[in-house]
Amino acid sequence: MTDTSTNMRLKLPVICFILEIILIILFGVLVEYDHDTDSKLFNKHNNHHNHSDAENEFYYRYPSFQDVHVMIFIGFGFLMTFLQRYGFSSVGFNFLIAAFALQWATLMQGFFHGMHDGSKIHIGVTSMINADFCTGSVLISFGAVLGKTSPVQLLVMAVFEVTLFAVNEFILLTVLGTRDAGGSMTIHTFGAYFGLMVTRVLYRPNLSKSKHKNCSVYHSDLFAMIGTIYLWMFWPSFNSAITELGDAQHRTAMNTYYSLAACTLSTYGMSALTAHDGKLDMVHIQNAALAGGVAAGTAGEMMLTPFGSMIVGFLAGIISVLGFKYLSPILEEKLRIQDTCGVHNLHGMPGVLGAIVGAVTASVATKDVYGNGLHKVFPDVADGSRSAMYQGGMQALSLAITLGMALIGGLIVGFILKVPLLGAASDAACFEDSIYWEVPGEEPDHEEQMTVVKTEESEKLSA
Amino acid sequence: MTDTSTNMRLKLPVICFILEIILIILFGVLVEYDHDTDSKLFNKHNNHHNHSDAENEFYYRYPSFQDVHVMIFIGFGFLMTFLQRYGFSSVGFNFLIAAFALQWATLMQGFFHGMHDGSKIHIGVTSMINADFCTGSVLISFGAVLGKTSPVQLLVMAVFEVTLFAVNEFILLTVLGTRDAGGSMTIHTFGAYFGLMVTRVLYRPNLSKSKHKNCSVYHSDLFAMIGTIYLWMFWPSFNSAITELGDAQHRTAMNTYYSLAACTLSTYGMSALTAHDGKLDMVHIQNAALAGGVAAGTAGEMMLTPFGSMIVGFLAGIISVLGFKYLSPILEEKLRIQDTCGVHNLHGMPGVLGAIVGAVTASVATKDVYGNGLHKVFPDVADGSRSAMYQGGMQALSLAITLGMALIGGLIVGFILKVPLLGAASDAACFEDSIYWEVPGEEPDHEEQMTVVKTEESEKLSA
Amino acid sequence: MTDTSTNMRLKLPVICFILEIILIILFGVLVEYDHDTDSKLFNKHNNHHNHSDAENEFYYRYPSFQDVHVMIFIGFGFLMTFLQRYGFSSVGFNFLIAAFALQWATLMQGFFHGMHDGSKIHIGVTSMINADFCTGSVLISFGAVLGKTSPVQLLVMAVFEVTLFAVNEFILLTVLGTRDAGGSMTIHTFGAYFGLMVTRVLYRPNLSKSKHKNCSVYHSDLFAMIGTIYLWMFWPSFNSAITELGDAQHRTAMNTYYSLAACTLSTYGMSALTAHDGKLDMVHIQNAALAGGVAAGTAGEMMLTPFGSMIVGFLAGIISVLGFKYLSPILEEKLRIQDTCGVHNLHGMPGVLGAIVGAVTASVATKDVYGNGLHKVFPDVADGSRSAMYQGGMQALSLAITLGMALIGGLIVGFILKVPLLGAASDAACFEDSIYWEVPGEEPDHEEQMTVVKTEESEKLSA
Repeated sequence: MTDTSTNMRLKLPVICFILEIILIILFGVLVEYDHDTDSKLFNKHNNHHNHSDAENEFYYRYPSFQDVHVMIFIGFGFLMTFLQRYGFSSVGFNFLIAAFALQWATLMQGFFHGMHDGSKIHIGVTSMINADFCTGSVLISFGAVLGKTSPVQLLVMAVFEVTLFAVNEFILLTVLGTRDAGGSMTIHTFGAYFGLMVTRVLYRPNLSKSKHKNCSVYHSDLFAMIGTIYLWMFWPSFNSAITELGDAQHRTAMNTYYSLAACTLSTYGMSALTAHDGKLDMVHIQNAALAGGVAAGTAGEMMLTPFGSMIVGFLAGIISVLGFKYLSPILEEKLRIQDTCGVHNLHGMPGVLGAIVGAVTASVATKDVYGNGLHKVFPDVADGSRSAMYQGGMQALSLAITLGMALIGGLIVGFILKVPLLGAASDAACFEDSIYWEVPGEEPDHEEQMTVVKTEESEKLSA
Repeated sequence: MTDTSTNMRLKLPVICFILEIILIILFGVLVEYDHDTDSKLFNKHNNHHNHSDAENEFYYRYPSFQDVHVMIFIGFGFLMTFLQRYGFSSVGFNFLIAAFALQWATLMQGFFHGMHDGSKIHIGVTSMINADFCTGSVLISFGAVLGKTSPVQLLVMAVFEVTLFAVNEFILLTVLGTRDAGGSMTIHTFGAYFGLMVTRVLYRPNLSKSKHKNCSVYHSDLFAMIGTIYLWMFWPSFNSAITELGDAQHRTAMNTYYSLAACTLSTYGMSALTAHDGKLDMVHIQNAALAGGVAAGTAGEMMLTPFGSMIVGFLAGIISVLGFKYLSPILEEKLRIQDTCGVHNLHGMPGVLGAIVGAVTASVATKDVYGNGLHKVFPDVADGSRSAMYQGGMQALSLAITLGMALIGGLIVGFILKVPLLGAASDAACFEDSIYWEVPGEEPDHEEQMTVVKTEESEKLSA
Repeated sequence: MTDTSTNMRLKLPVICFILEIILIILFGVLVEYDHDTDSKLFNKHNNHHNHSDAENEFYYRYPSFQDVHVMIFIGFGFLMTFLQRYGFSSVGFNFLIAAFALQWATLMQGFFHGMHDGSKIHIGVTSMINADFCTGSVLISFGAVLGKTSPVQLLVMAVFEVTLFAVNEFILLTVLGTRDAGGSMTIHTFGAYFGLMVTRVLYRPNLSKSKHKNCSVYHSDLFAMIGTIYLWMFWPSFNSAITELGDAQHRTAMNTYYSLAACTLSTYGMSALTAHDGKLDMVHIQNAALAGGVAAGTAGEMMLTPFGSMIVGFLAGIISVLGFKYLSPILEEKLRIQDTCGVHNLHGMPGVLGAIVGAVTASVATKDVYGNGLHKVFPDVADGSRSAMYQGGMQALSLAITLGMALIGGLIVGFILKVPLLGAASDAACFEDSIYWEVPGEEPDHEEQMTVVKTEESEKLSA
């Protein structure tokens, strides 16, 4: 099925250099600073209105951008280090494909946005956040195939997935007028089902050969908790990063925060309840406790209230733990979906839940509840061009479109990744850093060290 | 003394689910968005005054909120991972009780605040910071009992401690008009002495049975340093998070920063000085270097000057190392206080020092030194309703009240935690993750791994 | 060559206490709050202009300050934990010398700044960022001598290096009017060549005795990746932290971000290309992927465009990997420069590249490209007092001066550090924590632990 020549000496440099050179050329031709970043335009721009207003967008959004950035590189990167011998690849490939994807996403998202105003692609803090969002989706898919793909395969996957992400996002947000600020649909549902389909196509019947490495050791679980905690803490910034400034942004951060807090308690409860001896399972804590953030991705900016957010988070935690415990084994045995990180449980089901909650919440939006703020969240409802119920219908339709795009896209890309020469490891060598990395030993030489210290001390004594 | 049935299969789910369901119901009944978060109110609210002013509070405080959040979840969580086999519990129970405590604190603090204006509990970025502050106090107490309590006991402790924290905070800040922006008294002194009394009541005469696990290994100390460094870096944000905007906030951040820098040098000096062979002790570095932040918690917002802050921090580091070296063993042997993390040295004594520094600094406050800024720091002194000396007296009285509340509260809660069925481990099983967690092995199987690589390489050769 | 009495019992306390007491006295005499931090001045100051403007500087810069702070303490600290038995020293000495250097830098930088307005040293958020920048330079030099110097030697080095840094910075930024917002010259080139000269003077002919410890183990490389990722993520904040507010700051952040992204792809490509078996080398990923941030340090605030930034970053990654692979061994063998972290490859060559890019970009600056924004980036060019070409010449001259200052300074300080009694370790005891730290064992006692769990379980059964 796969080419076992995992030597990257030519493959990886060739793809890295070709991709980056294409990116540089396209950036040179297509991209320019936006008004707030261009030294010349900034000043012209500011003659027309208040100086500090033009600055504020950047200063209001930049801290959120950095929080999102931490989630993408530390959060996703370390969450996946739970495998005992795949830490270098988890952090390292996460780093590589994220660094590529955010550049490519800037072009793809800018291209579809540019179709409206026919100009060059303008970049600024918002485009940087959006690129990180798209990158997040690719990293979710990475979680599904973790341990089974070469860096070359991952870069190829990123090229196609970013493109499809931008198409799907364009259809949802621009064509259908769907609201999805935190990306329950565009990011989580899309990334999860895309990745699940890819891993389905790449099914390895003899993966049990490397089963003994598809688990954690004590310290690898602690590294993974660094990822989990950062994702948990900064999810309020993630969901609110591109909402309208003001009340919409405050509300989104707060709703997400309460959803996550409630999710954490239901996760711990369910993890103990589903274990025969009542012992907590690190896999649940590392993943399911985050499902509340995914599930608040669409409705977070709406008037969901903390009460509603907590119910959503509470349910998300329960669903996610049940998924890890009962559904994942079925998916693997019956549907042949080998989902390394269980992205179906953290991003798939909670993403669908979030989309449904969003559709329901949108369909009951009224001027009474939102006041003048309605135009910020549902501009089409506020100006009377569509009813709240219609908006809710569009939200539901968007979920269906996202699922379709993800599954078909994943199917096609999965077959592309089966092309030989992309350097996939053999079944026995999965979940193993040493295929692609120079790996040092596990521990220092104790005897040697003791000798040194003793020598040192005797030197002191004799001095 | 304790029920040795540590099986959490029913206990943990029951308490998690009951607590979260109560929280959800109370949030549904009692809580609503504040003016800046409610889509409807935000717009009405802003008709009355400048639009950007209403937004600014959120945007000025949100980055500090996230810094505080990192301290609570990463800082406290990883600081406590120093124990060799208690990393899952340190990070994991910290995560669980913090996620609960911040919800419960929102209600309790909001309840006492609401006694004034008789309305519902309004939540926003300030309530989120205050809830994290209260949570921090619970986590300090967790440090005292670390390794000896079940997650059920910890949740029960959090229920009561949060409530008492809110009462004490109300008495100090609202009734007495005390200033304590960074919580030398309300957070650190309260949390430390509460926890010390709890661990005194839960005294385990045979704890020496698990003594060999009550220490670190090489990598666990490095994980703990992640916690230390984050606490150290973000303490300026912690102490200044809820001060008045403007000069008071800048000053608090800066005073804390210089206090911590000076504290670090005195900690390193004292750590080498008190070791017979001059070797630095990780326990001191991980903890005492932070005492400068605790000690600047009350006076940080006052005109302490960098000079004064550095003296305070310098002394705090010295006191803290001396406490670890000479006082902690005495407390354990003579007073039977088994203080796992040495919270008395990091939070207890430096908290009391901070309260005293605050009382003295307050008592010498004059209009000459503070100018028109006096009303921001000491509104009662500025409007002439009390003298600076009286303010200083109130500050000192507040310390006494806090100590009393903490000790009596800890005494009562300690006895509550002795109730059987809460799942405490036996003396021999303390400081051990495997009682409450599914624990993987310590290291990967080297031989297996070597075989794989060799197989892989021979495959390549034969290809 | 060096005094092998590494006992720190008196040496370290003496230097820590003397330095901190001198700092406290000097702060008491020389330092006062700036307008925005002083309770009295803040209010007077604000009578003259808009209230919120005075506040904004703090609020706009504080999040960047914290990002820089994370780079200094977590970034540098953990990046250097890659050595198998030097993690305590890497994080711990980094912590100590940074805590000292930032206080000393505040005085030194304030002193040279104060020569203009003849007043006291005013401190605020900008002085805190500048102090962190200077500290960064010291930490770069620390990277060159890592594993071979005592904490006393490091503090002595910091005393002199901070002073020279401030002199060089004064000459460049104030006397010559050079632009170097992200410090390609002042921070990176200076710190690297200073450190390289120090390590040259401290050359250890028998360092091969501890060669077996001058390498990583599996988990130490993961800890180091925490440092790398934080440095990578927050470099846009670093380069833009003290630029003019508004477009200059947005642009700098964005240029740095694209430079780093491009650098990451060229680093991965080159790392695989230069390995005989195509395996990625953690040393390259941990270091060379950051060279794009260094190389954008001078030109980042200029109209470099994302296109130009990406080319610069792409080249920086290539140069840096080639340096690690081919140049470092030559420097060690031929020039006797034992550069532990390879700072020449991460900070030296990319810093020089950044300076050259800055000089070229400055020399082609026109009013056409910058518009009214020209005065923010090149005030002397904007007001006609110098031509763009002259500005470019000054930039190039600044590089030469920086190299000269660094090499001569490093030479002198290197000889100062050879003074006996400073506690350097013997050649065989380099790269070893246990010389200066109480070091616990590597792993818990497995048998003991198993026994405990079994006992616990049999207790349960019998209960």
